[in-house]
Amino acid sequence: MHAISFIQDLAVIMLIAGVVTVVFHRLKQPVVLGYIVAGFIIGPHTPPFGLIHDEDTIKTLAELGVIFLMFCLGLEFSLRKLFKVGATAFIAAFLEIMLMIWIGYEIGQFFAWNTMDSLFLGAILAISSTTIIVKALNDLKMKNQRFAQLIFGVLIVEDILGIGIIALLSGIAVSGTVSSGEVISTVGKLSLFMIVALVIGILVVPRLLAYVAKFESNEMLLITVLGLCFGFCLLVVKLEYSMVLGAFLIGAIMAESRQLAKIEHLVEPIRDMFSAIFFVAIGLMIDPKILLDYAWPIAVITVAVVLGKMISCGLGAFIAGNDGKTSLRVGMGLSQIGEFSFIIAALGMTLQVTSDFLYPVAVAVSAITTLLTPYLIRAADPLSHTLGAIVPAPVARVFGLYGEWLRSIQPQGQGAVLAAMIRKILLQVGINLALVIAIFFTGAFFAERIGVYFSDWVSDVGQQKAWIWGAALLLSLPFLIAAYRKLKALSMLLAEISVKPEMAGRHTARVRRVIAEVIPLLSLMVIFLLIALLSSSMLPTREWLMLIVVVAAAVAAVLWRWFIRVHTRMQIALLETLGNHPES
Amino acid sequence: MHAISFIQDLAVIMLIAGVVTVVFHRLKQPVVLGYIVAGFIIGPHTPPFGLIHDEDTIKTLAELGVIFLMFCLGLEFSLRKLFKVGATAFIAAFLEIMLMIWIGYEIGQFFAWNTMDSLFLGAILAISSTTIIVKALNDLKMKNQRFAQLIFGVLIVEDILGIGIIALLSGIAVSGTVSSGEVISTVGKLSLFMIVALVIGILVVPRLLAYVAKFESNEMLLITVLGLCFGFCLLVVKLEYSMVLGAFLIGAIMAESRQLAKIEHLVEPIRDMFSAIFFVAIGLMIDPKILLDYAWPIAVITVAVVLGKMISCGLGAFIAGNDGKTSLRVGMGLSQIGEFSFIIAALGMTLQVTSDFLYPVAVAVSAITTLLTPYLIRAADPLSHTLGAIVPAPVARVFGLYGEWLRSIQPQGQGAVLAAMIRKILLQVGINLALVIAIFFTGAFFAERIGVYFSDWVSDVGQQKAWIWGAALLLSLPFLIAAYRKLKALSMLLAEISVKPEMAGRHTARVRRVIAEVIPLLSLMVIFLLIALLSSSMLPTREWLMLIVVVAAAVAAVLWRWFIRVHTRMQIALLETLGNHPES
Repeated sequence: MHAISFIQDLAVIMLIAGVVTVVFHRLKQPVVLGYIVAGFIIGPHTPPFGLIHDEDTIKTLAELGVIFLMFCLGLEFSLRKLFKVGATAFIAAFLEIMLMIWIGYEIGQFFAWNTMDSLFLGAILAISSTTIIVKALNDLKMKNQRFAQLIFGVLIVEDILGIGIIALLSGIAVSGTVSSGEVISTVGKLSLFMIVALVIGILVVPRLLAYVAKFESNEMLLITVLGLCFGFCLLVVKLEYSMVLGAFLIGAIMAESRQLAKIEHLVEPIRDMFSAIFFVAIGLMIDPKILLDYAWPIAVITVAVVLGKMISCGLGAFIAGNDGKTSLRVGMGLSQIGEFSFIIAALGMTLQVTSDFLYPVAVAVSAITTLLTPYLIRAADPLSHTLGAIVPAPVARVFGLYGEWLRSIQPQGQGAVLAAMIRKILLQVGINLALVIAIFFTGAFFAERIGVYFSDWVSDVGQQKAWIWGAALLLSLPFLIAAYRKLKALSMLLAEISVKPEMAGRHTARVRRVIAEVIPLLSLMVIFLLIALLSSSMLPTREWLMLIVVVAAAVAAVLWRWFIRVHTRMQIALLETLGNHPES
Repeated sequence: MHAISFIQDLAVIMLIAGVVTVVFHRLKQPVVLGYIVAGFIIGPHTPPFGLIHDEDTIKTLAELGVIFLMFCLGLEFSLRKLFKVGATAFIAAFLEIMLMIWIGYEIGQFFAWNTMDSLFLGAILAISSTTIIVKALNDLKMKNQRFAQLIFGVLIVEDILGIGIIALLSGIAVSGTVSSGEVISTVGKLSLFMIVALVIGILVVPRLLAYVAKFESNEMLLITVLGLCFGFCLLVVKLEYSMVLGAFLIGAIMAESRQLAKIEHLVEPIRDMFSAIFFVAIGLMIDPKILLDYAWPIAVITVAVVLGKMISCGLGAFIAGNDGKTSLRVGMGLSQIGEFSFIIAALGMTLQVTSDFLYPVAVAVSAITTLLTPYLIRAADPLSHTLGAIVPAPVARVFGLYGEWLRSIQPQGQGAVLAAMIRKILLQVGINLALVIAIFFTGAFFAERIGVYFSDWVSDVGQQKAWIWGAALLLSLPFLIAAYRKLKALSMLLAEISVKPEMAGRHTARVRRVIAEVIPLLSLMVIFLLIALLSSSMLPTREWLMLIVVVAAAVAAVLWRWFIRVHTRMQIALLETLGNHPES
């Protein structure tokens, strides 16, 4: 058959990978490193040369490896876990990513690399490696300790932020510049897309999977999962985002399915096969000459990764209220880079905006920091003892006071319940508004095409616009009403808290009612202005607008209860899917 | 990233395959048919056109599908099952394959197709489809009935014979002619290769897998399995056999591993993914125009498959001593063609010896016979009743008498034990001789290369040959000695049976001893002649030969016990692997 050279490549990759991983396992090093070394051995830059013939096909398979890696990361992600991670994870992850991007950028500038290389270096250093950390904590049997749980929380937040970084970098790479307006617009659009995709996905996909799972055929379930995965990736690519984002999102959506355990089971061997090819393909690209030429930057970057992550994550954990020892452990556990860095480096290469040396440098730094990880984790406790002995007493007292102060300002009892309620209401309002905005965005996006389609019936462009805009408004009504009701509840709550009888005396009830009515109305007006701004391209003339708003108001008034019922049913479906989940 | 068209192809394939398989499952039809229909829908010959962009990559993945299909077939095969299947399976499978190849060839000639097309058509019709039969019997809940067990036995023998057919066809396709000498030589070489590969494989591979499994990492086990699978396929390809053969053999070898259940578990999702691509790729190639043009041959071939397989398998089962009802059920259960036919048709296409229409015709016949299978199985009992009523009483009595006669001639009690012993001894002698022949073959194959390597030390070509031949003889000694001892045991057994005291009187003991000594010696001489013939290219001069034989005889005499011990240890290792298997 004609694909013998391809089979030969696969045979060589799998054979060498198999041998090297066994060796690495015996040396108690992560399998991932073994794959990279295997790729290095069979690569074109080291003897024996020419073991791989069909490098293009291998690279295509390696991209499948990236998709499956991110898909499985998404499967392990789960929104519930994100909701559960505490302040520590958010603060530490933000601090780490900001600091590391900055440090990376500055290092690049120091070595006189160009702006893109510096920027990508920053992104490469930003995200720690889930694979490596899980492996190390497993080996050290520390997986169930508190600091390990904190680390997993940080990793979850990092995944989401990493996805954002990839989307941002793609945009920046295409436009070639970094403007804050663009960054905000990209982040906004991305958040909007993610929220909409997650809401619709969680409403549809788990139901679909449950239907297919009824047939009790592993094969059919697998093919459906793969179809959804690749199909969603394709959709995301058509929307000009990265495939990586699509794979992660659809994984996160499927993580809410009841078939999660089964799906993980079925997809894991496929991921293992393709990710092995991916990591071997990384090794293939390493040229020892580049490593020698860039030995100095590699050393600097390695030190920067270890110290930068240790300090930023440790500080973040401390600021969020953990004690010094735990904070240090969190910081030292996260001190490495891994698969995310490879994906970002690969992105730079395929977009052709980074230099050739960046990839091997990233791989080298990842290899070194990976090797260091277990030692760093084990060194955390002795180091915190040493630090405790060295740090002068007054400084230590300040740190202690900070912890006490933090605990004192944290809402307790009724206050904490209230804070949680407000958070929940704001989240719900946010999601509803995101859906409304998405509806108008979609309308604006398709307006021209729909216009052409309609032109036989409605010739006047203004009238076309009016119809589309009106339809969008009608579709948004359930979400707008829901948002309005939530906002009203929030303002009543706020009025109750802020207007005390001691202050307003006998006017208390009236003032409270005014506040409770005014705030939601004001917010609604702001929302309308926002929508008008966003959908400016398809905004009809003023007369039409007035007419539509009046009609919409009438519809809303008449169908108020029905809209609420529809929305409630969707909300229940969503919460059921999120809640009905077997513990895995 | 650059492989977007490829991802798009995968997305389209998986999405359509997912939808169509769900529909087919609801229609209670095999998923395989669904894949083919999905391929037909997205194919270039039917609207919507142009859904698939990167057909080459899809075909490469489809070949991976063939490899994984055959590998999993090998995993389910297992030598023990082959040893256990009774005469029914062998007789029915032989009869079926011979008849179907002949019928297929004649049909091809009838439609004035060329010789190669006719021959491949015969081969395409020869093997029934395990996938379809298992599915149908599952659906009908008949999997545990006696006739189903007989069918599974036939399928196992068919697999082995099918592998032989593929090897033969490859040889014939390259040389362009069919000579009986060539067929015998191909079958001989193939059997030799399979025996050697199985013996060495079963000695080495399960041990290796057990070692890797100790690390309790699914990933490492999977990568090792894939490495061995592709590596072995590559070796087989280098020996100019088909990759399909390699995948099946290494599967059969791994079937003897204790990790079988785990391996099946890990490989199944990968097989499902790639075999889906394989079957979809089959559908891609169907051009409805060809189907219309060849409607008449398709109808004839379909009838031939159903009737031919029904009669040949039914008759085979009956000859082997089953009652009419069971025989009919066996025959009607096997009345279809499937994956093996696709593989053979694909072989013809990639070797470029068959016409373009053969593949779609095979697919069409397979689709129709697949649809018929469940109805045929259900129709078997009514048909046997009808036949019982129609067939005239004398004919029925003849059939009944045949069954009785067969039971009367079957060895009973001591006779049966004796027959089993003789069979076992002959099998052991055969395996040992196969290994000896393989050693000399390998020697002859590498003789020239080794000669060049040795030329610095030993310049005389005759002397070189003597050394290589001598080394081969030395390596063969343990197996020769084992064969000799088994033959001696056999001749003693035969002498005991054939020379009765009533006949030979007081000479009984002496005659027996003579027979017991003469037969093994004669056999050994025949073996030596055979070896000399096979290794003629590297046979040394007569003086050298004499010297070597004398030396070998001396070595054999001195190390006799040691050789026996080595051989016994190997045999124990082999039997342990074959015996120590968890029931799956």
